Amino acid sequence: MDRYDICIIGTGPAGISAALTAKNRNKSILLIGRKDLSNKVIKSHKILNYPGLPDITGEDFVKAMREHLDRMEIEITEEQVTNVYAMGDYFAVQCAKEMYESRSVILATGVMPGSLLPGEEMYLGNGVSYCATCDAALYKGKEATVLGYSPKEEEEAAFLAEMADKVYYVPVYKDEVKLSDPKIEVIYGRPEEIRRAEGKSTLVLDGQEIVSDGIFVLRDAVSPGQLVPGLETDGAHIKTERDMSTSIKGLFAAGDITGTPYQDAKSVGEGNIAAISAALYLNGKERSNG
Amino acid sequence: MDRYDICIIGTGPAGISAALTAKNRNKSILLIGRKDLSNKVIKSHKILNYPGLPDITGEDFVKAMREHLDRMEIEITEEQVTNVYAMGDYFAVQCAKEMYESRSVILATGVMPGSLLPGEEMYLGNGVSYCATCDAALYKGKEATVLGYSPKEEEEAAFLAEMADKVYYVPVYKDEVKLSDPKIEVIYGRPEEIRRAEGKSTLVLDGQEIVSDGIFVLRDAVSPGQLVPGLETDGAHIKTERDMSTSIKGLFAAGDITGTPYQDAKSVGEGNIAAISAALYLNGKERSNG
Repeated sequence: MDRYDICIIGTGPAGISAALTAKNRNKSILLIGRKDLSNKVIKSHKILNYPGLPDITGEDFVKAMREHLDRMEIEITEEQVTNVYAMGDYFAVQCAKEMYESRSVILATGVMPGSLLPGEEMYLGNGVSYCATCDAALYKGKEATVLGYSPKEEEEAAFLAEMADKVYYVPVYKDEVKLSDPKIEVIYGRPEEIRRAEGKSTLVLDGQEIVSDGIFVLRDAVSPGQLVPGLETDGAHIKTERDMSTSIKGLFAAGDITGTPYQDAKSVGEGNIAAISAALYLNGKERSNG
Repeated sequence: MDRYDICIIGTGPAGISAALTAKNRNKSILLIGRKDLSNKVIKSHKILNYPGLPDITGEDFVKAMREHLDRMEIEITEEQVTNVYAMGDYFAVQCAKEMYESRSVILATGVMPGSLLPGEEMYLGNGVSYCATCDAALYKGKEATVLGYSPKEEEEAAFLAEMADKVYYVPVYKDEVKLSDPKIEVIYGRPEEIRRAEGKSTLVLDGQEIVSDGIFVLRDAVSPGQLVPGLETDGAHIKTERDMSTSIKGLFAAGDITGTPYQDAKSVGEGNIAAISAALYLNGKERSNG
């Protein structure tokens, strides 16, 4: 397997800025994220304070960044990262479909909207899953509940329904749900808690409870402590130094995941710094090896 | 005198980003700098890694930022800041022509190219000056030496020659010198040291020495410790926290002045953070006053 120099996780402004600078520094990069870049940016009505692009809509900003990636011949690998493991002198980036290796990693996955549900962390891996692609096979002939935080999760629910006998789908957004599979039942409500008892998972909504064999919580971003075992965090954020390094050597972070303000300009700046710090880290390693 | 909410010093990417965000947050701002923004950016051949503006020339980037300022109705005050004094709950910003007051300050003056000359700091205010506009009157009937770090300093030399009997001009750049005043003698050489003895200042070049009544050292940026008495620095850089605060309450910094990497994206990000931190600082003060 090829080992990349820098694996960048996330395709918002921080991840893209990091990718452009890393490529510019002649590093081999793996950029993991969504081909439509960032749902959060696309939904920005107007961005007023990103220098050089006055009054730009979120959609146009994403388009401009997309063109910039094309110009620099940077590909996006559409994958879902489930875990990042520090292996000593490299990282194993475990995704839903494949495993990748990289000498350094930049986390730019954005911040999780809201906080974890009570019970979510406790039952993760035991009745709660973050990845339909990874765990769908376990639901053959069973019932699953999907808590979807964005319309794209409807595809995951549809995929699960190919395996499972029944899927309960709870949308946590305002767009119209477009699922038509008769095996999927759409239920509306505000999620309040996750419980687990006698091999069954219960999703508690305001007013009703859904009992099934397991619950899929599908967000754009997962909590950084879940993603990288052993990483020092401060609530929903990763602790970073001025050079965007984290508590794990060779692992850097940029953008909303490092804390407020949640601003495109800040994300772009931090992505730039993280890429240069990662390049310096790699060069230093090469020197000490030679 | 009107007291501004936020005084931003510097019109490179950091200062402009700070100004856009501060204005966006409805703060009254004073942006001090050059109407042509940043000589350093203008001279960038191509900027490859500023997300959203692929392959942009320095000149076009400056133009885009200039338009952005116009769109947000932000004026630039062309002044030379000689000192910033922390007065307790506000700052006195001493310029060559005027004095301004502001409740907070963001320093984004860029980094001084190279280091101070030996003797420069020791004789500052006694045979060495950073500001022709401020001190020209003292040179009536005398001789002055001007060490110019960019072509725009030729104007300062011409202005000095209106007062002084003789001006020696030493350009520290490659552009052709366009001075034609017979009172100005252009001397080429690499500056090595400044000495002072018996009321005369000597500029030591490689190969020759220029003796005159005083030396003007004119750079785009001055050292931050000189600018703000009492500010904690680390060599040529200002020590900053993650929120761009400095050792002085209400004073923030952004861009090259805070350290490497010297990158436009980093500067833009830090300007954004500094403006939001300044706004939070002001809001906190309002709350505690109310």
